[in-house]
Amino acid sequence: MQIYKAPVDEMMFLLDAFGYGEVHKLEPYAAYDLDTMRAVLDQTATFASEVMLACNRVGDQQGLSWDPKTGAVTTPKGFKEAYQRLVEGGYVGLAAPPEYGGGGAPMSLASFVSEMHTAGNKSMSMCPGLTAGLVEALHEHGSKELQDRYMEKLISGTWTGTMCLTEPQCGTDLGLVRTKAIPEGDHYRLTGTKIWITFGEHDFTENICHLVLARLPDAPEGIKGISTFLVPKINEDGTRNNVKCTGLEHKMGIHASPTCVIDMEDAIGYLVGEPHRGMRAMFTMMNNARLLVGVEGIALGEIAYQTALAFAKDRRQSRSLDPAKREMDAPADNILVHPDVRRMLLEVKASGEGMRGLSTWVATLIDISQAHPDEAVRQEADDIVSLLTPIIKGYCTERGFSNVSEAMQVCGGAGYTQDWSIEQYLRDVRIAMIYEGTNHIQALDLVGRKLPRHGGRLFQAFAKRVARLAKEAAGVEETKAFAAALGKSLQTLTETTMALGAKAMADNEEAGAVANSYLKVFGLVGCAYSWTRQALHAVQNDTTNRATKLKTARYFFDVILPEIDSLVKVIAVGKEPIMAFDVDEL
Amino acid sequence: MQIYKAPVDEMMFLLDAFGYGEVHKLEPYAAYDLDTMRAVLDQTATFASEVMLACNRVGDQQGLSWDPKTGAVTTPKGFKEAYQRLVEGGYVGLAAPPEYGGGGAPMSLASFVSEMHTAGNKSMSMCPGLTAGLVEALHEHGSKELQDRYMEKLISGTWTGTMCLTEPQCGTDLGLVRTKAIPEGDHYRLTGTKIWITFGEHDFTENICHLVLARLPDAPEGIKGISTFLVPKINEDGTRNNVKCTGLEHKMGIHASPTCVIDMEDAIGYLVGEPHRGMRAMFTMMNNARLLVGVEGIALGEIAYQTALAFAKDRRQSRSLDPAKREMDAPADNILVHPDVRRMLLEVKASGEGMRGLSTWVATLIDISQAHPDEAVRQEADDIVSLLTPIIKGYCTERGFSNVSEAMQVCGGAGYTQDWSIEQYLRDVRIAMIYEGTNHIQALDLVGRKLPRHGGRLFQAFAKRVARLAKEAAGVEETKAFAAALGKSLQTLTETTMALGAKAMADNEEAGAVANSYLKVFGLVGCAYSWTRQALHAVQNDTTNRATKLKTARYFFDVILPEIDSLVKVIAVGKEPIMAFDVDEL
Repeated sequence: MQIYKAPVDEMMFLLDAFGYGEVHKLEPYAAYDLDTMRAVLDQTATFASEVMLACNRVGDQQGLSWDPKTGAVTTPKGFKEAYQRLVEGGYVGLAAPPEYGGGGAPMSLASFVSEMHTAGNKSMSMCPGLTAGLVEALHEHGSKELQDRYMEKLISGTWTGTMCLTEPQCGTDLGLVRTKAIPEGDHYRLTGTKIWITFGEHDFTENICHLVLARLPDAPEGIKGISTFLVPKINEDGTRNNVKCTGLEHKMGIHASPTCVIDMEDAIGYLVGEPHRGMRAMFTMMNNARLLVGVEGIALGEIAYQTALAFAKDRRQSRSLDPAKREMDAPADNILVHPDVRRMLLEVKASGEGMRGLSTWVATLIDISQAHPDEAVRQEADDIVSLLTPIIKGYCTERGFSNVSEAMQVCGGAGYTQDWSIEQYLRDVRIAMIYEGTNHIQALDLVGRKLPRHGGRLFQAFAKRVARLAKEAAGVEETKAFAAALGKSLQTLTETTMALGAKAMADNEEAGAVANSYLKVFGLVGCAYSWTRQALHAVQNDTTNRATKLKTARYFFDVILPEIDSLVKVIAVGKEPIMAFDVDEL
Repeated sequence: MQIYKAPVDEMMFLLDAFGYGEVHKLEPYAAYDLDTMRAVLDQTATFASEVMLACNRVGDQQGLSWDPKTGAVTTPKGFKEAYQRLVEGGYVGLAAPPEYGGGGAPMSLASFVSEMHTAGNKSMSMCPGLTAGLVEALHEHGSKELQDRYMEKLISGTWTGTMCLTEPQCGTDLGLVRTKAIPEGDHYRLTGTKIWITFGEHDFTENICHLVLARLPDAPEGIKGISTFLVPKINEDGTRNNVKCTGLEHKMGIHASPTCVIDMEDAIGYLVGEPHRGMRAMFTMMNNARLLVGVEGIALGEIAYQTALAFAKDRRQSRSLDPAKREMDAPADNILVHPDVRRMLLEVKASGEGMRGLSTWVATLIDISQAHPDEAVRQEADDIVSLLTPIIKGYCTERGFSNVSEAMQVCGGAGYTQDWSIEQYLRDVRIAMIYEGTNHIQALDLVGRKLPRHGGRLFQAFAKRVARLAKEAAGVEETKAFAAALGKSLQTLTETTMALGAKAMADNEEAGAVANSYLKVFGLVGCAYSWTRQALHAVQNDTTNRATKLKTARYFFDVILPEIDSLVKVIAVGKEPIMAFDVDEL
């Protein structure tokens, strides 16, 4: 059973609720009025379910094959054709600069498109996702000349891109990168081995462009000695560069996404950005990527939800606990009468819509941060984006994993079989908690970098928005209870943040020990903001989903948000129970 | 990477802490003194790691094959031989009645053996597990004649057993069973289709004995019209009975455990127990089975923990947050310096040891409930066993799943690959939340049947034990903080139980809506009891693990137990936020 109907109405509602009106007024996005947005979303919805989902299961089951002799990777049946249609649909360069043929679309649109692609076929969606990241890094840091040579082909999808960071001895700790780059004329010669390279080799396109972290001969040790290079598979003279896929990982999921070992030996590469400042280009690539990885959790939660709901609507088992609801002319009642079946579905629905709202808000803020004429407005938007990016990556992927598992539980034994596909979504979504910086790296980024930055300015910008919304929602009958809960959660978050800051000042381990719980608290407060804003918008505009939005918001506040209480208690305890152990006691 | 060293010392500690001394005094278990227990555990530990684990991965990757023509199922390479060694080791009938060749071992031993088998090879362990269940049902409900014909071969493992409950239209709701049984002389003729039949067909043994739920011609509708039959694959005259495997399910995990569709057409079967009272035999089989399914969560959490710890000990990445802990002569520090890596490991360790203690207690109580000379003692033990069985099944499997996921996270990207095997454990353990009664069925069993039974007597028996322990531990310096937290958690549980009881009296849906959260609260209180008892025992006997046990107990009380706060809040809200939705709003 494979079904997916992308929630386009919901997305349009969220664009409205989270200020897309402001984005559309910005000059670069003038072409993207609401009608255009809906048209692209509708078209993408069809594409995701009819093209991408159609080969999703075969991708999982057939997987990839790799030829040890040539290093060639063959993708599953139908993938090459589907990728071609993805290129024809203009999806690869949707948000890329128009001067090189890109669509120039706002992130407000691109993040929804990415959600649909992921839901339809997570493995395949990773390929254009990485290319878009490379395009961004080149656009931001590459020389005009390099841009002229590569941007157009990448944006059109004629060539694809990768991100080559990890090596066997370094995943989280990129300061340990050993790959070397030796200058030679206008280019460099790179030698080293990279692992976990997504779509590092495939049969979609002739050329593949790798963005590679490496060290120049005079590089200082550690993270400050890393430079970034563009290393094409095919040289500009048409010869084959000395970069080769020497193996594929065998993974729990995303079986159709090649995770490659890439060996370079004197491979020709071109410097991107300044020497030793390579991490800047990577961070450009990573920031939006982290938002979109968070969205993966939402995407797979959504398709799993739709699948479980379809199962539940069709399944009769046992009798309602309420005699009045029993259909005695049928052998058993539909399982949607059972409170726990509803509870499981609502866990996914209420958390999922809350997270989608939060990420929509961040997407609009990204657009504002890049294109608003007023620097103060750009600054404030960028502050909130920087603060919330690790939260969305960490919170939405962890919750996405538990949401898919909850959807599986709705289907009982059927959910554990391939017949209902949820088992694939569960395997596929698990990686999102690990890659693009593990969720703990996100938590450390939040606690160690984003909170202290500019004397706490980022947190203050967020808190101001939350307080303002709570005040507004307090004045509306239908939302005043939400406003009160939001206000209280903000107060809890603020107190926790201050206490943590004070503790961390004296002892960094205190921050490291509770960073994960702190990120979860922040994720919950973020979703409380998201739900209050959605509820208020629904009431103020009397939208057609008004009644359901109010009920779902209530579920969130009554059943999901209380998790904060336990987390705050654990944060208050701090590092002692964790660090008390000797290694041999573990 | 496949490593597993069964925690025999830990198990011996738990036997001591949870009253195995009392069990050993009981006449049927006189042979099982502590030396014998350790000898069996040591031998099983070797068997689990050297025989069962050795073919665990090949089982996952190679899987099963099924011949549509004959219905034959071929198990993966090495399985047949490993099963033969399992038979030779006397494992199948370890706890079975000695009069038919069984070992007569106490559940206190059998549950640990089951844990080791599951950790070593979950797929394979399911086969002797089901046979043991069938033996139990036959022993309790079968006629002497039927016992004489089947028990010995089953206990020796020469033949295997299954449990045939589910049909396409009924999983949770067994009242919908349609399989028919028509009397014919001294036997019956059965016709119907059963699904999800674990080891319903295989190549380990010549004969397979199915315990089948079916309806007699005069059966009343629903659950009170179900009878139980023994249906052998090979008839007693050596001819083939008309029972056939007509397909295998394709599952997320347990790839080496055949999950069969079993078709019967006029198959010969023998009545077990009284007509229309078939659910009694099934419940006999299910009760111990539910305890052992809970243990599966502990088992896979344990092997995943050991794997993650081995990874962590070997991995260097980044620098300690505490400058004093940095090893500056190495390129990076061992990741066990990072608080979050420890936190993840401790989540698994502290919850796992707590759950193992709880299930050890229940195992000793099962032995006491079956063999103690004093009826009042038997009764009290049985009360607590009945109460805690659904909690152990539900809580330990859910926590087991999240524990394996946590262990995967310790390993980062490596954890997501087959190289470290945790991805298999995660896929394998997920089914435990579903089968043997979904976790929500456990929660309903707890709330709807176990709590009200005998006017709350079961709960009172449990509460009395907890209060007694809290009082004792309050008098010991090292455990008085745990005692206080245990006492408080019992008070919270008692209040929640009373409030829920009152609500449920007026409206059953109130109980259904919060049963899952309630079960979790109970699981946490059960683990608080377990940890207090372990800590007290370690202090009072100055055991070698004393210091570590106290630290781990502290971690449990400080970091894991506080989850209760949030759950209690959600329980207090009740059904309203869940039941407010119309079906088309989902």
